[in-house]
Amino acid sequence: MHNSYSYQALFRFTLNVFKKMGCNDTHADTATSVLLSADMRGIDSHGIARLSGYVRLWEAGRVNPVPDIRIVHETPSSAVVDGDKGLGLVVAHEAMKIAIKKAEAVGTGWVSVKNSNHFGIAGVHAMMALEKDMIGMAMTNASALVAPTFSAERMLGTNPIAVAIPAGKEQPFVADLATTTVANGKLEVASRKNEAIPEGWAQDKQGRPSEDPGCIKEGGALLPLGGDRMHGSHKGYALSSVVDIFSAVLSGASYGPWAPPFPAYIPMPENMPGEGLGHFLGAMRVDAFRSKESFFDNMDKWIDRFKNAKPAAGHDRVLIPGMPEMEKEAYHKMHGIPLLKPVVEDLNALAGKLGISCLP
Amino acid sequence: MHNSYSYQALFRFTLNVFKKMGCNDTHADTATSVLLSADMRGIDSHGIARLSGYVRLWEAGRVNPVPDIRIVHETPSSAVVDGDKGLGLVVAHEAMKIAIKKAEAVGTGWVSVKNSNHFGIAGVHAMMALEKDMIGMAMTNASALVAPTFSAERMLGTNPIAVAIPAGKEQPFVADLATTTVANGKLEVASRKNEAIPEGWAQDKQGRPSEDPGCIKEGGALLPLGGDRMHGSHKGYALSSVVDIFSAVLSGASYGPWAPPFPAYIPMPENMPGEGLGHFLGAMRVDAFRSKESFFDNMDKWIDRFKNAKPAAGHDRVLIPGMPEMEKEAYHKMHGIPLLKPVVEDLNALAGKLGISCLP
Repeated sequence: MHNSYSYQALFRFTLNVFKKMGCNDTHADTATSVLLSADMRGIDSHGIARLSGYVRLWEAGRVNPVPDIRIVHETPSSAVVDGDKGLGLVVAHEAMKIAIKKAEAVGTGWVSVKNSNHFGIAGVHAMMALEKDMIGMAMTNASALVAPTFSAERMLGTNPIAVAIPAGKEQPFVADLATTTVANGKLEVASRKNEAIPEGWAQDKQGRPSEDPGCIKEGGALLPLGGDRMHGSHKGYALSSVVDIFSAVLSGASYGPWAPPFPAYIPMPENMPGEGLGHFLGAMRVDAFRSKESFFDNMDKWIDRFKNAKPAAGHDRVLIPGMPEMEKEAYHKMHGIPLLKPVVEDLNALAGKLGISCLP
Repeated sequence: MHNSYSYQALFRFTLNVFKKMGCNDTHADTATSVLLSADMRGIDSHGIARLSGYVRLWEAGRVNPVPDIRIVHETPSSAVVDGDKGLGLVVAHEAMKIAIKKAEAVGTGWVSVKNSNHFGIAGVHAMMALEKDMIGMAMTNASALVAPTFSAERMLGTNPIAVAIPAGKEQPFVADLATTTVANGKLEVASRKNEAIPEGWAQDKQGRPSEDPGCIKEGGALLPLGGDRMHGSHKGYALSSVVDIFSAVLSGASYGPWAPPFPAYIPMPENMPGEGLGHFLGAMRVDAFRSKESFFDNMDKWIDRFKNAKPAAGHDRVLIPGMPEMEKEAYHKMHGIPLLKPVVEDLNALAGKLGISCLP
């Protein structure tokens, strides 16, 4: 069903694609490493499998490969960045650098971004703060696929929140979560297998609970984290809304049902109230709050205590957020990254179209 | 079953209690208005019904009525505040003032608090930012009642997150949510009625799903938002962890299973790694990102669009976070605040003990 490829092989291939789009060397390098971090961490849906989607956005004129990414408004601890229609993979990376620089100067830095595109996985941008002994945060809005509690209409994206927190001896804590019950990918898998989905994942066009994985394609919606009102979906809806507002209302991007779609074949929404997709990035120096040493000591103690919590019946360990992804990354470094056959075929077709070497 | 009392009557009563504890006039006033904001907003579990609980903490020597609340570490955009064992109601209020002051100076302000106690509802602290045209955030850790995904052990509190966002013509957006599926109060209600609870709310001592509302008292635990792994409980667990770390690891408060309990009869945890309970408060000036006018225009448009989303079958409107609480507040202003008979009896017994006037 799949072949495995070394990170280096996928890197060379992806770099060539971004260069063919017209990205300069630095941007192509950033876009490649941000995109492939998803594959490395086992979040296949957001990695190289999307590469041809980015290319189609460029072909449709929705991505500018040579963006002038710049600050358009700022204070010592905050900024709004205009991404100039660049690849979100690059724009968010540059915006996070600005957040980190501001945190170096005044303790914390917060950057809201407009006029951007899909930025890959949120976690990788948040994790940029770790090597500076900072806490990193990253959020983004996305095209509407999720219905608020009591709504039949899709109003929000899967709007992820990532928080990366450094530790001393222990591996860092990295939370990276869509504010829905599950990602759309899980419905696609169930659809291919012709399996029903659990209640709480999705609803039909009228807003009634649905166990049909195809309901999204027929005008249904994903549900906010919580699933239904009785299980707290109004909380997932509120969190997703905060991500939308911080990412897009604060920056001047397009929000709610007007967020631009990722698939290039879907027409852009009419009467968009802002420019492009929005992100929100934050960095907080650990020593803006207490000495690094005492923070790291206590963070190690926190992680150690939670790792050693008594497991529930039928389970053998309690996980720290980020642990499964870190384990996958180590595995993929050793054994390569497996790609499904349709993904390889899609990438080689892309190579043919762009006139670059196929995958080895 | 209940009588209604005017806000003024409850205010006078509560103020007298805090003064009897030895709070100065300013602190007694702050504690009273913060506590009663819960009753006004319809979150009965966190309001005057808890007053005798605060008194018992004071009697047990766990609350200092005359705290020296002070900054112990800071940068232009951040601070750690030592609450000196004060009432969280007062400490968090003072800490939020510091966050707001820093936001006035450098765009945003972030304050982590240690050595505090229960701070009432998170929303009221976040909402302090609104009148300054700022976005406010408030979080707190709390005594362990919640099991991480795959854990049989209680490791986290109900750890709420509140975000208050100002608008122009529209009412502000106010999200205020515990990072659990439901609050403990809902289990207590089911327990009194001898009703089973839905799956996804709680688990038993071994970490198995439970429909028994009494399972918490027998060593069980509440579940993180999501309920179980299949419905995203690892996301609720991650969010609750972030609240714990921002509130307590960043400040030097006690975290995880070592967070101090609210009921004074429960002994303090042994080997606490920090001082008291922790909070995290934030303020961001709207015009640290874009002009107030354009932010308010777009925030109004966001709210208006979501209010007018097509309702799901069987529902007549989509709510904006904070709307139900605002409607309750308006109702309580007009018609008074209803208190259950056992709450009134408890308060009048408290009045007798402290030698102050009973409720009218």
